[in-house]
Amino acid sequence: MRNIKLLIEYDGKDFNGWQKQPNKLNIQGEIERAIQEITKEDDIQLFASGRTDAGVHALGQVANFKTSSNMPVEKFPIAINNKIKKSIVIKEAEEVDERFHSRYNCKKKTYRYIINNSEYGSAIYRNLECHIPQKLDVEAMKAAIKYFEGEHDFKGFKASGTSSKNSVRKIFKTKIEVHNERIFIEITGSGFLYNMVRIISGTLVDVGLGKILPEEIPEIINAGDRKRAGKTLPPQGLYLLKVEY
Amino acid sequence: MRNIKLLIEYDGKDFNGWQKQPNKLNIQGEIERAIQEITKEDDIQLFASGRTDAGVHALGQVANFKTSSNMPVEKFPIAINNKIKKSIVIKEAEEVDERFHSRYNCKKKTYRYIINNSEYGSAIYRNLECHIPQKLDVEAMKAAIKYFEGEHDFKGFKASGTSSKNSVRKIFKTKIEVHNERIFIEITGSGFLYNMVRIISGTLVDVGLGKILPEEIPEIINAGDRKRAGKTLPPQGLYLLKVEY
Repeated sequence: MRNIKLLIEYDGKDFNGWQKQPNKLNIQGEIERAIQEITKEDDIQLFASGRTDAGVHALGQVANFKTSSNMPVEKFPIAINNKIKKSIVIKEAEEVDERFHSRYNCKKKTYRYIINNSEYGSAIYRNLECHIPQKLDVEAMKAAIKYFEGEHDFKGFKASGTSSKNSVRKIFKTKIEVHNERIFIEITGSGFLYNMVRIISGTLVDVGLGKILPEEIPEIINAGDRKRAGKTLPPQGLYLLKVEY
Repeated sequence: MRNIKLLIEYDGKDFNGWQKQPNKLNIQGEIERAIQEITKEDDIQLFASGRTDAGVHALGQVANFKTSSNMPVEKFPIAINNKIKKSIVIKEAEEVDERFHSRYNCKKKTYRYIINNSEYGSAIYRNLECHIPQKLDVEAMKAAIKYFEGEHDFKGFKASGTSSKNSVRKIFKTKIEVHNERIFIEITGSGFLYNMVRIISGTLVDVGLGKILPEEIPEIINAGDRKRAGKTLPPQGLYLLKVEY
């Protein structure tokens, strides 16, 4: 069997997330259906680097599937793109070792969260960012985000009620950039718990509002209590930027 | 009567253009309705710097209206924003001299056209740019756009069938910028004919494809023949960036 790796962009607004669910529009199901039509194989399984939630976007999601089709690998993007909704685009296809698995072999993932910090927000980009009208102190946010770097137990930064045996994750790199009225929060880590980036971003907003001091972050992480962290920011500001292997 | 000047952003996708038309969603009508509700005046007339067509976006449209309302000027943006569709945002309001008119006093307008020149285009920004998959020669486009600067009769660069007594316009400044896979075409002029920026952009695409040489542009302008210029690019790539007085 050949193993094909895809690089995928999608507009999360139109979908109930990555994962296949009956009777709900989802990204995995939409792409699998197209591949099945192309390869005439009815058991295609598409493995992503990880799920993204309803409304979350991806500029660089990675997924792979096995096939016996002999279609040249460079034909897959256009063939799939012709059969799926325009809110998903396959940007690249590559033939990889049969042992490659998008999730298990993933070493690093980078997410970006976009905040529009202008008074009235944007009409054009309203579904592609989170609008926070109160002026945020970006310097305080930059100081605070550094405390998330390194290996920590992020128990307090996952959606309450979700189980995960091990909530220790390693954050390799963080960055906050200002582009005019927008604040870009970028976090690269070994992996992320459910809603983790949106909760970290919400906590950084509390820092920007002066509700939390940057120096309090280590204590909030150590507490391991979801109630100590900030709100979960909405999905439309979140982008899966890059997956590294 | 007080004269209030508004700075307006809108997502053109949701509207049949700026101008009020019966039974069609339009930007002018939507904002006028909100102002009428706020001021309790039923004859509000909103004058824009110019119409924009169906699907065209604005980051900096300017419009003004007269009112007897004594609402503080700084309250207008939030009051109007609360009553209109989220695809329109009033960014600023300012009280101006009663003789000020958004259209007649306009000295310069700047438009931007965004082309996505990647092989498969973008899923996320598909309604906010024009996708051209064939690789464009940007250096040739940069050479070509300079020939549009200055005062010219742009008869060949307006939608065929539209009347306009005088088709002489002055282009003050042009610019082409590359941002990764995107090409931004920016044109500042005294005013623009119907579809003029979209036809100039389509002509520049023909230059980028090698169908027209940069040096041929002066002759194409002088010919005054719509058939000599390039195609009219679609509205979703066009933005009214700025209006100057």
